[in-house]
Amino acid sequence: MSFFNQKYHSLIPYTPGEQVNEQQILKLNTNENPYDPPQAVLEAAKQAAMTLSRYSDPTCRMVRQPLAKQLGVKEEQIFIGNGSDDVLALLFQGFTEHGVAFPDISYGFYDVYRHFYQVPAKIVPLNAAFQIDLADYEGSSETVVIANPNAPTGLVISKERIIQFLSQNPHRLLIVDEAYADFGKESVVQEVAHYPNLIVVGTFSKARQLAGARLGYAIANEQIIQDMNRLKFSINPYSVNTMSLYCGAASLNSQDYVDECIEKIITTREYVCSALQQLSFEVLPSQANFIFATHPKITGQHLYQRLKQDNIYIRWFDQERIRNFIRISIGTQEEMVYFIEKIKEILQEENIHA
Amino acid sequence: MSFFNQKYHSLIPYTPGEQVNEQQILKLNTNENPYDPPQAVLEAAKQAAMTLSRYSDPTCRMVRQPLAKQLGVKEEQIFIGNGSDDVLALLFQGFTEHGVAFPDISYGFYDVYRHFYQVPAKIVPLNAAFQIDLADYEGSSETVVIANPNAPTGLVISKERIIQFLSQNPHRLLIVDEAYADFGKESVVQEVAHYPNLIVVGTFSKARQLAGARLGYAIANEQIIQDMNRLKFSINPYSVNTMSLYCGAASLNSQDYVDECIEKIITTREYVCSALQQLSFEVLPSQANFIFATHPKITGQHLYQRLKQDNIYIRWFDQERIRNFIRISIGTQEEMVYFIEKIKEILQEENIHA
Repeated sequence: MSFFNQKYHSLIPYTPGEQVNEQQILKLNTNENPYDPPQAVLEAAKQAAMTLSRYSDPTCRMVRQPLAKQLGVKEEQIFIGNGSDDVLALLFQGFTEHGVAFPDISYGFYDVYRHFYQVPAKIVPLNAAFQIDLADYEGSSETVVIANPNAPTGLVISKERIIQFLSQNPHRLLIVDEAYADFGKESVVQEVAHYPNLIVVGTFSKARQLAGARLGYAIANEQIIQDMNRLKFSINPYSVNTMSLYCGAASLNSQDYVDECIEKIITTREYVCSALQQLSFEVLPSQANFIFATHPKITGQHLYQRLKQDNIYIRWFDQERIRNFIRISIGTQEEMVYFIEKIKEILQEENIHA
Repeated sequence: MSFFNQKYHSLIPYTPGEQVNEQQILKLNTNENPYDPPQAVLEAAKQAAMTLSRYSDPTCRMVRQPLAKQLGVKEEQIFIGNGSDDVLALLFQGFTEHGVAFPDISYGFYDVYRHFYQVPAKIVPLNAAFQIDLADYEGSSETVVIANPNAPTGLVISKERIIQFLSQNPHRLLIVDEAYADFGKESVVQEVAHYPNLIVVGTFSKARQLAGARLGYAIANEQIIQDMNRLKFSINPYSVNTMSLYCGAASLNSQDYVDECIEKIITTREYVCSALQQLSFEVLPSQANFIFATHPKITGQHLYQRLKQDNIYIRWFDQERIRNFIRISIGTQEEMVYFIEKIKEILQEENIHA
């Protein structure tokens, strides 16, 4: 017999990228930052550990304060969660009265959440250029969820276009997942002061090098943040641990180092992009820390499997429209030079010439 | 306008004990451990921080392995969550097809969860001696949730009685929350091998001094653990961060120190118990790291407020049947000697003589 609630029997959970932890593997499959966190984070973790016999601060003030300053918003406009997945889960659970609408190709968890929380969903195809066209979302009432830059495409919608949508649809809630925005040029985070129908989701996992610490946030007007906290305090008030709070604060306090690493990643991204193009790949113009590419003469699945044999892990999605693409996280310059060498070898094996 | 789903508008979240963090305050209100984590935990936190650019291990193997050894169960019988609140939330969400039954006086979150997940609940009064009588739970089909030792009473049901219930009610799921079991004499954790209708919930927050790290677990048969993981992977696969995993492993590797601190707390608990009895308090015989006591001539509320003036925080519940009780977490011996002195002063102020 099973004690598991009937409604969950057919549950299809999220499939994360493989988490391997072996020295010889080049891990370019989960969009992690290839650079270590700043030294201050190590000291912060140790200092935090001394306080662990006490509960963590459920208001997460230690991170909210400097983050408010950094983003140019008010503390009361910030919700801190246990990674941005935790934040997104709360949003799908609590802010989807009229259903959700999101792109057919985007972060895979949106589809898991809408099934899990049994939210009616309108799945909106990306246009032929793999772009989100907000015009396709007009004229109905669902909460709109987009990632900007989008994953796995890396493509962006302009701030101007988002603001236009917000002002023309004031009764429509728009959730913009900016997990990768630090690798691009724009953010709409400061617009929460003007648009009560905007929620911006962010994370310390990508640009801030703290994937393993699980720190995510939502920025929105005070009322939405209060409602999110009511959800949090009904599930797990202490959802963020003390060490992650200390490390998050230390990261915010090491902005120069963080920015330096972002710059290096962007430079390397442009190198990978043009190197692949020279090898006849089609590469979408990414504003994220990964690129999405396809080759006319070799399948995505083959590249994925062949690279794995060489201990290089990338991501391949067995999904319509993008089955021939591969998503490659940007590592260090050295790692990516090695990656390009391996790609050249594979093309040679297959007798493919640029 | 509000974008918050209608069904949550009347949500009543959990009220945690006040989290104050000032040196001069004696904090005896959230059943934290007064002793610092072992030195190994500090080193573990720092070591973990070096890996934070990578995601944490969603299978939590680093903790599951030594915990399995410590508890005498299989790795596959262990689920690790972001604190035991996270674990309990998943259980209320996923294993309550026939509703839940739990005591009227117990951990306050059970009542929050049943409202939040809209699970029909049968609230079963403790008997006149404030004990859980499992006979009161016979003859229906709800999932039974008990804390053992119970909070805030500190009272226990024997292992023998729990086993009897499990074997006589094989189609009834029993969740035993053993958050405080390390301060008592018995655990039913090893019974999961024999009873597929048993789930034991545990935490690193109390005996293991890691409240701020948020590590909780469930022990049950393999099928239940698999189902719990399906829920976790539908909400937040990386719910436990890397530092907490390293710290949890370090704690399990420092068992002598942990046991030593438990022994000190038990000794101090017995001291506080008899000191209060000498001052005419009625004290329930606690098997936890807190005691629940009442005085015939002074109200619980007054004691709570009066102690707060002296910077001593305890817990008082404005709830029927226990309104005249106070719950006092056990601090160090020195702290509790000071506490008893303060109690004596308060009784003198009120002209109460033992």
